[in-house]
Amino acid sequence: MIKQPLKGMNDFIPEEAGLRDYMINQILEVYHQFGFERIYTPAIEDIENINNKEGGDNQKLIFKILKRGEKLEEAINASQFDDLSDMGLRYDLTLPLTRFYANNKASLPQVGKFIQIDRVYRAERPQRGRCREFVQCDIDVIGDESYNAEIELITATGRALLRLPIGEFFIRVNNRQVLKSVLLSFGFNEESLDNICIILDKLDKIGVDGVVGELEAQGYDAKAIEGLKKLISNPVTLDDIAGIIPENPNLQILKNVIDEANQLSKGSYKVIYDFTLVRGQGYYTGCVFEIASAKFGGTIGGGGRYDNLIGKFTGEATPAVGFSIGFERIYAILHETGFKVPGRKKLAIIYKNDYIGAFNLADSYRDSYEVSMYAFPKKVGKLLNRLELQGFNAYVIYDKDNEENNLNTIDANN
Amino acid sequence: MIKQPLKGMNDFIPEEAGLRDYMINQILEVYHQFGFERIYTPAIEDIENINNKEGGDNQKLIFKILKRGEKLEEAINASQFDDLSDMGLRYDLTLPLTRFYANNKASLPQVGKFIQIDRVYRAERPQRGRCREFVQCDIDVIGDESYNAEIELITATGRALLRLPIGEFFIRVNNRQVLKSVLLSFGFNEESLDNICIILDKLDKIGVDGVVGELEAQGYDAKAIEGLKKLISNPVTLDDIAGIIPENPNLQILKNVIDEANQLSKGSYKVIYDFTLVRGQGYYTGCVFEIASAKFGGTIGGGGRYDNLIGKFTGEATPAVGFSIGFERIYAILHETGFKVPGRKKLAIIYKNDYIGAFNLADSYRDSYEVSMYAFPKKVGKLLNRLELQGFNAYVIYDKDNEENNLNTIDANN
Repeated sequence: MIKQPLKGMNDFIPEEAGLRDYMINQILEVYHQFGFERIYTPAIEDIENINNKEGGDNQKLIFKILKRGEKLEEAINASQFDDLSDMGLRYDLTLPLTRFYANNKASLPQVGKFIQIDRVYRAERPQRGRCREFVQCDIDVIGDESYNAEIELITATGRALLRLPIGEFFIRVNNRQVLKSVLLSFGFNEESLDNICIILDKLDKIGVDGVVGELEAQGYDAKAIEGLKKLISNPVTLDDIAGIIPENPNLQILKNVIDEANQLSKGSYKVIYDFTLVRGQGYYTGCVFEIASAKFGGTIGGGGRYDNLIGKFTGEATPAVGFSIGFERIYAILHETGFKVPGRKKLAIIYKNDYIGAFNLADSYRDSYEVSMYAFPKKVGKLLNRLELQGFNAYVIYDKDNEENNLNTIDANN
Repeated sequence: MIKQPLKGMNDFIPEEAGLRDYMINQILEVYHQFGFERIYTPAIEDIENINNKEGGDNQKLIFKILKRGEKLEEAINASQFDDLSDMGLRYDLTLPLTRFYANNKASLPQVGKFIQIDRVYRAERPQRGRCREFVQCDIDVIGDESYNAEIELITATGRALLRLPIGEFFIRVNNRQVLKSVLLSFGFNEESLDNICIILDKLDKIGVDGVVGELEAQGYDAKAIEGLKKLISNPVTLDDIAGIIPENPNLQILKNVIDEANQLSKGSYKVIYDFTLVRGQGYYTGCVFEIASAKFGGTIGGGGRYDNLIGKFTGEATPAVGFSIGFERIYAILHETGFKVPGRKKLAIIYKNDYIGAFNLADSYRDSYEVSMYAFPKKVGKLLNRLELQGFNAYVIYDKDNEENNLNTIDANN
């Protein structure tokens, strides 16, 4: 019997689980206030769905589930070793959402606003910070082609993050169609745009010279490369872009989204344009977003519009936009910095006799405290020290024959 | 692409997910009041842990995860087809809890009181009512050898169920040691006790004659069978048992548990003795419980003491008791009877112009309502009808140029 959880998967002790539940409740409360509603989908999907190529690189990281009984025997006897599995664990919440929407469309509102906070699985190589089971935290608007959906997602996500003590953050926004129009204007051709986006997406890691080098190595037009190089070497504003592709309707949408989202943030976070933002997933068709935390460095969320995904299930074009908070990243930050969940009050009833009497006393406190009962131990000082370490706020020593049974405060310095 | 979830697994649309979250929150609130704390463990366990025989029949129903990369190739090339899997999905929450406790003992309180509400997986044959992914809802006390743990589990579980509109229920209690002492007193021998318990556990299904028939067929002593037959043919009280095995310490524990749990229930549910209660799992060592719902028929929860399980990981005897609410059964009952989650208030802002102004108006209502925004449609009556169907309580038609923007109530008859 093996005591440790599998590599890349985690046990969460009460303090840790309490922090996770607190985060989820804060986020849920804000999302509910915005009219989003939670849904649940199974963690397991048909292998056919989960092997679809929209999953990009994540699709290589699927945990596959072995067939059972006769079907497993059949596959082995026929030496069909590519056919040992009929199901897989989901690698994200977007594929299950699109399948869910296609399956339940008749029972859902015309514009669906969905919350998913749930586990996903990736067969990553076990190493620090690469979890194989982790929680994703998504909201999606399905059925709204207007850019109000983008504004609502950005604002709801921003407000949710304001509930968590992560310090300053900002939201970077781009639009894939705008990016592609700019690339076309430089002379890149239509068919190469996806590939150039993939290279551009590496800018953070390989820098301007790296991007230029890869484009040159792949034989793209020198003048086109030169045009792109200028734009990624210096900060670019929406006005700069308007100079390149004036009167582009997607550019107007991008302007409006950024402008209105900023008005609604009332300065509590900034929404900014980022010409170089691509986002990895191939399925994005319009605006893309990313959340960056000034204090902690790096990305703590992202999303975008993916108008073509649901149609793969339904055959019917259906607009969709989603935004995902990097739950595990924020959890790790709050956990490492020792954030204490506010508002929990813990009381111990230490009883000398009369368990029923002590229980009834405990009951009288349960509306204001989380109440634990302990038999009076040989060394009460040791118990009190332990309670303090565990974050208890108060205790009562209950003695049936003592009319007082006073509430004593524990000074836990936190 | 396949729209339906896999057989035996479920999508939950917002109304359904809302009911599930409501149930979880009600149960969690009570359990927190009793000082229980939530923990999380991964849904995937090492195949060695999950194949252990304590899982009983459930162990046959494991979803196994295919090995990956070189290790999969190795197993195939060596024709080791029993060795294609290195992990499995958990089939219950008790095995993960005992592994968790063994792994995290140093960071946990001496007496641990844990909540687990989480998904488990069983490769059942797909058929009505047999889910392959479902939620279990457990509390466990680890490290307390006193029967106060039993009383606390029964009382906390009873109180949690009182929060849910399931009508009258009662809690049946037995003690495996008492049952075994009675069987010994009839002349059955020590080694046959487990087998006799397995047969007795079928009483519900096969009746008194069925049990007697199986015992006879297996060649047990006729006089011993006769003694047992009398006890299972008529209701048996603790006094009857005291006539058979007087001064048995486990009988005294059983009496005290039932007596004190009844005092604490204050008549809101009954805790009763049931001589025939066995509970399927082989690992139970002392008291066992089962919840029966008078209104809906059948079992809606169960548990018991399992003092020998944690030692399999730690090598150290560790007392443990657990109680599990049949979450899916109760969910199904409430869902089928059309129970509406109380307290949710939904408001629609239908805006004619000025999205930002409408958004700010929506914000002013978000503390008291879940607020959704809609562009003013061509047919507003149709939208209002749909909002009523979706359980909205109120709406505002927002017009920038109208100072009134009144709140209108929707009479949704629910």
